[in-house]
Amino acid sequence: MNAEIIAIGSELLTPFRQDTNSLYLTEKLNQLGVDVIFKTIVGDSRAHLTAAAHQALSRTDIVIFMGGLGPTEDDLTREAVADALGLGMHRDAELVASLERRFAARNMKMSPNNHKQADVITGAVVLPNANGTAPGQWISGKYEDREKIILLLPGPPHELKALFDQQCVERLRAKVPPLFIATRELKIAMMGESLCDARIAPIYKRYADVQTTILAGAGEIQLHLKTRSDSLEHAQQRVDDLVEKLEEELGDFVVSDNGDSLEQIVSYYLQMRNATVAVAESCTGGLLAERLTHISGSSRYFLGGAVVYSNQLKTAFADVPPAMIKRHGAVSREVAVALAEGIRKRCGTTFGIGITGVAGPTGGTAEKPVGLVFHALASEDGTEVVEKNFPGDRKRIRWFATQQALDMVRRKLK
Amino acid sequence: MNAEIIAIGSELLTPFRQDTNSLYLTEKLNQLGVDVIFKTIVGDSRAHLTAAAHQALSRTDIVIFMGGLGPTEDDLTREAVADALGLGMHRDAELVASLERRFAARNMKMSPNNHKQADVITGAVVLPNANGTAPGQWISGKYEDREKIILLLPGPPHELKALFDQQCVERLRAKVPPLFIATRELKIAMMGESLCDARIAPIYKRYADVQTTILAGAGEIQLHLKTRSDSLEHAQQRVDDLVEKLEEELGDFVVSDNGDSLEQIVSYYLQMRNATVAVAESCTGGLLAERLTHISGSSRYFLGGAVVYSNQLKTAFADVPPAMIKRHGAVSREVAVALAEGIRKRCGTTFGIGITGVAGPTGGTAEKPVGLVFHALASEDGTEVVEKNFPGDRKRIRWFATQQALDMVRRKLK
Repeated sequence: MNAEIIAIGSELLTPFRQDTNSLYLTEKLNQLGVDVIFKTIVGDSRAHLTAAAHQALSRTDIVIFMGGLGPTEDDLTREAVADALGLGMHRDAELVASLERRFAARNMKMSPNNHKQADVITGAVVLPNANGTAPGQWISGKYEDREKIILLLPGPPHELKALFDQQCVERLRAKVPPLFIATRELKIAMMGESLCDARIAPIYKRYADVQTTILAGAGEIQLHLKTRSDSLEHAQQRVDDLVEKLEEELGDFVVSDNGDSLEQIVSYYLQMRNATVAVAESCTGGLLAERLTHISGSSRYFLGGAVVYSNQLKTAFADVPPAMIKRHGAVSREVAVALAEGIRKRCGTTFGIGITGVAGPTGGTAEKPVGLVFHALASEDGTEVVEKNFPGDRKRIRWFATQQALDMVRRKLK
Repeated sequence: MNAEIIAIGSELLTPFRQDTNSLYLTEKLNQLGVDVIFKTIVGDSRAHLTAAAHQALSRTDIVIFMGGLGPTEDDLTREAVADALGLGMHRDAELVASLERRFAARNMKMSPNNHKQADVITGAVVLPNANGTAPGQWISGKYEDREKIILLLPGPPHELKALFDQQCVERLRAKVPPLFIATRELKIAMMGESLCDARIAPIYKRYADVQTTILAGAGEIQLHLKTRSDSLEHAQQRVDDLVEKLEEELGDFVVSDNGDSLEQIVSYYLQMRNATVAVAESCTGGLLAERLTHISGSSRYFLGGAVVYSNQLKTAFADVPPAMIKRHGAVSREVAVALAEGIRKRCGTTFGIGITGVAGPTGGTAEKPVGLVFHALASEDGTEVVEKNFPGDRKRIRWFATQQALDMVRRKLK
């Protein structure tokens, strides 16, 4: 079965606000074996809302409306859904009484506009809202001769989540065919998207029953795999088989096969080896340290480091010889090595990382263009250096560079 | 005129990813006087995509498709839009050549699947993509006897933004009726949302023609003001009047009244005074340095600093006496002061910032709970310290702490 989620509210059509409820509902629906195939965001307009409702009812089995159930004139979801279904509404006396009790309990007088929250679409089951005034509604019936489930949920996230979990999940489970869903996620570092796809497409295409979603960021590709079956073992085996074949093909480009981030994997590896790390960053300006310390408990392996933006500090904190900077330039293979070795010695760590490059948008030259970054990893085995020309803007180049450096640590420890 | 934005990609229908491009486009469209009245999110299905295109073309003047222009088999936007418009496509030889040059310049071999990115819908203007392989397309013409503008944009945010700004804004301006929109944005630091709203609501409610949106984050409130009119002077005067009254009420809590970030304002102030800064961070782990160096040109005032996670490094890089750490603990007013003064002296800067605290989730005690952070700012006038107990998770506490530290620099230089 499939679903459409409709988020209602003119504020969701401004540059400032965004629907996030749908991510939560999608996860819950997926677990029930229901795919979300459309999401629509519509303002507080009865005509637009009715049109969106018609459209959704014509193309999906389950339609979930979020928001527009409050007491104001802008709250039009009940009216619009009733219109689209060709159904009437009645004011539920018990709901009116319960609203009045709710206000009285807080020593507040209820303004009359609140009454409209007690309007119920003919045939709907009222879903009490433990955290707010507007109840939800559940409608199950035929629309143009096909069985549909229609849900009206309140917009505030804590109301919606509680109401959906407590009153909708089991009702839906009773209506949808029993299905088991297995998912896996692979993370791949420092590989181009089209190269990666070219290598894995022949493999995942042989698994037509497994949905493969490829997401590419700066220096990272995520492969989300999902399949469903009426047997849990079969579903799990299919994604596990595919994961195994993908890992065989991609080899040590694979960072993790359970959704763990690169920082997290580096964290595990460092702790397994009782190893420590320190960083000396120039163009990444603290981002590498920030990513390492983003992980709770990172003080066990991350001792610290230096952000050495000026040449003087490259010398003061990581003992880079001034003559070397003068001769090769601050952005050079030699300085990257000296940063890594210097900070490792200063901090007494297993590993030292040095990064120097041109993050842009200014400061690039013909010889050393924006995007050129040298990454060095020093250890007792010596120091390795990777030179890269990263594309993109300042933010992306800085992210790429930290990704490259973390990946060097991962590969070293693997 | 009105618009619909269609975000394309099955990953946007998973619990993991969300369209954010539409926020950027909405801001730009609003500035042109164009309202966004629907947003639709659709997966990589040619049938669904074609249906969404039909629907959007039937209800809005401008339809913007984002994503699905890449080289993989999942990239179906060109085909679906051509289907919906009843138009054909041709493979543009010049685009193929330019793709080949792009790959050759990076010493990469182009896989044949990339060719489809050179497919152009009949009558479309090709919009070159400076940051990626897939160009955009602009189509302007009749659909069911009404004038429509159709835009195909790449999905990656940095590609989409640059392409839209450089190649679409002026083209759109020439097509939409002139309507003047005035906007202002106030940024307010380190003030609670409900306190702020209680103080300003009586003011902005007197300006019913100005739309006021309040957004609250960790240590920052944004007030977005917008009004439209057929006279630019009138629109501008209304928002400017309101800004003036809000600034009067909020005083020096106001960081900026033109959308500039706190980092940007600190950057201006430091450059105006020819001042420099260095940081010694413990619990923020590099985030403060990262925020300072996020600004291009920050090397003019940010010399660098140290991430001193371990106690030894607090001594090694910022000369904090070991006896002081032993006596007062690493998270203490005294150590914050010593970090700020030590790093200032080491780096020879106008200002030194020291941060030490408990970011959590572990490491808190009854005396020093999670969220306790000391921030110190050292200068030739002496050192000031601010102690705070921040709410929230690790990420939020770290952000709050950097916000507080940056705000201390701002207030010092104001």
